[in-house]
Amino acid sequence: MDEPDFFSKSRILIVGLGLMGGSLALALHNKVAWLGGIDSSSESLEMASRLNIFDALSNNLTDLLPSANVLILAAPVRQNIKMIQSLPDCNHEVVVLDLSSTKRRVVSAMNSLPPCYDPIGGHPMCGSEKSSIRFARPDLYINATFILTPLQRTGKKAESFASDLINLIGAAKLLLSAETHDRMTAETSHFPYVVAAALCQSTHMESKPLISTGFKSTARIAGSSPAMMLDILLSNPDNVLDAISKYKEILQNFEIAIQNQDALL
Amino acid sequence: MDEPDFFSKSRILIVGLGLMGGSLALALHNKVAWLGGIDSSSESLEMASRLNIFDALSNNLTDLLPSANVLILAAPVRQNIKMIQSLPDCNHEVVVLDLSSTKRRVVSAMNSLPPCYDPIGGHPMCGSEKSSIRFARPDLYINATFILTPLQRTGKKAESFASDLINLIGAAKLLLSAETHDRMTAETSHFPYVVAAALCQSTHMESKPLISTGFKSTARIAGSSPAMMLDILLSNPDNVLDAISKYKEILQNFEIAIQNQDALL
Repeated sequence: MDEPDFFSKSRILIVGLGLMGGSLALALHNKVAWLGGIDSSSESLEMASRLNIFDALSNNLTDLLPSANVLILAAPVRQNIKMIQSLPDCNHEVVVLDLSSTKRRVVSAMNSLPPCYDPIGGHPMCGSEKSSIRFARPDLYINATFILTPLQRTGKKAESFASDLINLIGAAKLLLSAETHDRMTAETSHFPYVVAAALCQSTHMESKPLISTGFKSTARIAGSSPAMMLDILLSNPDNVLDAISKYKEILQNFEIAIQNQDALL
Repeated sequence: MDEPDFFSKSRILIVGLGLMGGSLALALHNKVAWLGGIDSSSESLEMASRLNIFDALSNNLTDLLPSANVLILAAPVRQNIKMIQSLPDCNHEVVVLDLSSTKRRVVSAMNSLPPCYDPIGGHPMCGSEKSSIRFARPDLYINATFILTPLQRTGKKAESFASDLINLIGAAKLLLSAETHDRMTAETSHFPYVVAAALCQSTHMESKPLISTGFKSTARIAGSSPAMMLDILLSNPDNVLDAISKYKEILQNFEIAIQNQDALL
C-alpha cells in the first residue's frame, strides 16, 4: 500500500500531555489532519486546551481512539506499557509509536498487540527536568537524536510515519535494537539521574548557602519528574545496576588516590 | 591607623593570571593605584598583556613585589601555599589575600608569614570549567558569595581591604572559619567534581552518540582544570573522603531499591 501523504492525512492521538507530548503537539499543529490528546490529569487537560491546538481532548482513551489512525504514547514508561497491554482490537489499522525512555519492555508489550496495530518503539533524546505541558515548546525536538527501535512485525506504515515525524520536528533518526538502546541510555541518561539524585541526598542543608553554579549543573537533572524516573530505573534495572557497580569502583579509585595523596589521580 | 582610601590607593599584585585572577584584574582596572600581574606561563602573560589593564607583568614575583602593598594569590591551592611559604621579609606592610578553593592549609601557611604581612583567606564561589585568562570577564564575581576566613593575626587593613574589594566587584561577603569552609565546600564543590569526573570515566565511548543535555549538565564540571582540582582534592582530603563514603552508602540504597523493584525508592 503506497500512501505518500499518509503523514499529512494522519489523525494523531497523543496519550500523555506533559513536556514531551505537549511539545510534540505544538510541533504537529496544522501539519496533520486531526490532533487529539489524552491525559488523566484535569489540570494538564486544561492547560492543553488553552494551547488551542487540539481537535479533541479527553481523560478517557476509548472516547478518542476510534477517531485516530496514529497513537503516540507519551506517558511515563510503565503507564505506556499498561496502555499497550490494554489496547482493544480495532477495525482499522493504527500506527503505535511510543516516546518512552526505556525500550525492551515496551517493545515486548508491543509484540502482543492485536494485528490491527502497527507498532514501533521510539525515544527522542531531549526533554528537561521541567516536566509539565506548561513548559512545552514546538522547538523541543530540533536537533535531538530520535531513536527508533523497530519490531520484527513493524510495517512500512509505522516506519515511514515515524521517519516523516522525525523529519518534520527537526530531529535526527537513529535505528537501534531495544537491547542496545537500553544499555547505552543507562549510561548516558538513566544512571546520570541516579548520580545527580544521590548528590542531592548526600548534601547537608547547612551547606546550601555555598551552592554555586557547579553544584547546580551537576545536580540539575535530579529535579526530573520522580514518576518518570522511577519508571525508567525500574524498567532498565540490569543496565542501571551495572552502571552503579562500575561507578562505585571508580569512586574507590578516587578514594585510594586521595588517601595516598597520589597526584597521578 | 585610619586609612579610608587605602583601597583606591592600593598597589595590587595578582599572582596567577587564569580565569579568576584575570577576571579580578578586569574588575579592578582603573579602580586602584597600580595593578601588576605574575604568571609562570608566557602564554598567559601575553594574553594578560593584550588586555591592556596591567601596569606591570612578570614571570618573577621578586621583580614586582617591592611595588605592591597588596598581594592577591590566584593560582591553584598548592602553588599559593608554596608562594606564601616563600614570601621574603619586607620593609612595608603588605596585605595578602588568596582566592584558593580550600582554606585550612592556606591559613596555616599564612600564620607563619613574617610580621610585615597582613594575611586573610578568601574564596570567591564562582568560576567555570573554562580556566584560562582567555575567558576572563569583569562581571565574573557579580552576585558570587565571597568567603573570607580571617586569621587571629588578620589586621584591620586586610579585613577592610577584602571587604572593599568584595563590594567593588559586586560579590557578597560571608565570614567562615577555615574548618567550616573546607567541610561545606567539600560537599557543594569539591566532591561534585569527583561525581562528574567519575561519571565521565564510567561512560563507554560507544555510548557517546546518545549523550544529551542531561548528561552534559551532570558532567560539565569534569572539564575543570585538572591542576586546580587535583590541588583542591589533595588539600581537603578528609572532607572529600567523608563525602565519597556517604555517597557510596546512598548509591547502595539505590542499588537495593532497584534490585527489589522498590517503587518507594
